[in-house]
Amino acid sequence: MIQLSTVGVKEYVIKLTGEHMEIERKFLIYKLPEDLGKYPFHIIEQGYLSTEPVVRVRRSDDDYYMTYKGKGFLSREEYNLPLTKESYEHLITKAEGNIISKKRYLIPIEGTSLTIELDIFDKPFAPLVLAEVEFETEEEAMAFIPPAWFGEDVTHDTEYHNSTMSRKVFGGGE
Amino acid sequence: MIQLSTVGVKEYVIKLTGEHMEIERKFLIYKLPEDLGKYPFHIIEQGYLSTEPVVRVRRSDDDYYMTYKGKGFLSREEYNLPLTKESYEHLITKAEGNIISKKRYLIPIEGTSLTIELDIFDKPFAPLVLAEVEFETEEEAMAFIPPAWFGEDVTHDTEYHNSTMSRKVFGGGE
Repeated sequence: MIQLSTVGVKEYVIKLTGEHMEIERKFLIYKLPEDLGKYPFHIIEQGYLSTEPVVRVRRSDDDYYMTYKGKGFLSREEYNLPLTKESYEHLITKAEGNIISKKRYLIPIEGTSLTIELDIFDKPFAPLVLAEVEFETEEEAMAFIPPAWFGEDVTHDTEYHNSTMSRKVFGGGE
Repeated sequence: MIQLSTVGVKEYVIKLTGEHMEIERKFLIYKLPEDLGKYPFHIIEQGYLSTEPVVRVRRSDDDYYMTYKGKGFLSREEYNLPLTKESYEHLITKAEGNIISKKRYLIPIEGTSLTIELDIFDKPFAPLVLAEVEFETEEEAMAFIPPAWFGEDVTHDTEYHNSTMSRKVFGGGE
């Protein structure tokens, strides 16, 4: 995640994806919407070969790719590069730390062009649920009023970056 | 290496690098030029995390990067993505097969805008030496008359692709 600028505190984050700039906010979720079953979803599995810069391999349903996210002085760009199933299955064995599995629901927000990406994490992160919303403009990001079922804004909390989660060490034993 | 088309046999190879198309020929070298010491060179080390698509990490002097070369239906593009020294040293430990080390001399061909990339391989590939020449146009590639010290044209010999060399198994024992 390439943080280029922020206005205020915990407002939103700006990422550059190739030529495309992403402006996003992220929230904790404690209560799932009751009508969740009616929305489309993707089954996502991902692991990190490197976290700085990020070199991530991801399976999303039957699509496989490697994502590079340049950092700071190196490059601000993000690339999604296609992999075959075979090369994905080979590269995921080289991932460091935790493999992250999650079910990502896509929930449009009525009356807007916005879509909530609702990530329901599997073990070892369950019952963690995160919602991410991408905006067209900084004004839109700042004006966003989260739905009532959203928990706190963790946009700038690195603990909830998936790359940080991949490095999380879980206590063993009973 | 993305072979898009060939004219004739063993003539040249065309690669796409981002928006840039490369047209190259490759030759075996048995006798080094006597004035080699006067040309600039790079110390290159590289390894492959995947060979289809190619995911290569390379050190060239004090520059570090990861190269992705899409293949066939997936993507015809090639990307060079910067790494830090630390991430390179981490990722090279994940490489499969042989780590390739070589000294690459850059030798301009007098009276032309062409440059010979002369790769002198270290163990376990020594005494292998390969020369590669890149051209602006297909016509130029076809018209190229190799210097007298060039050996046979191996442009289309996959044995001399570095990715193939990374997978080469060397016999053990005496």
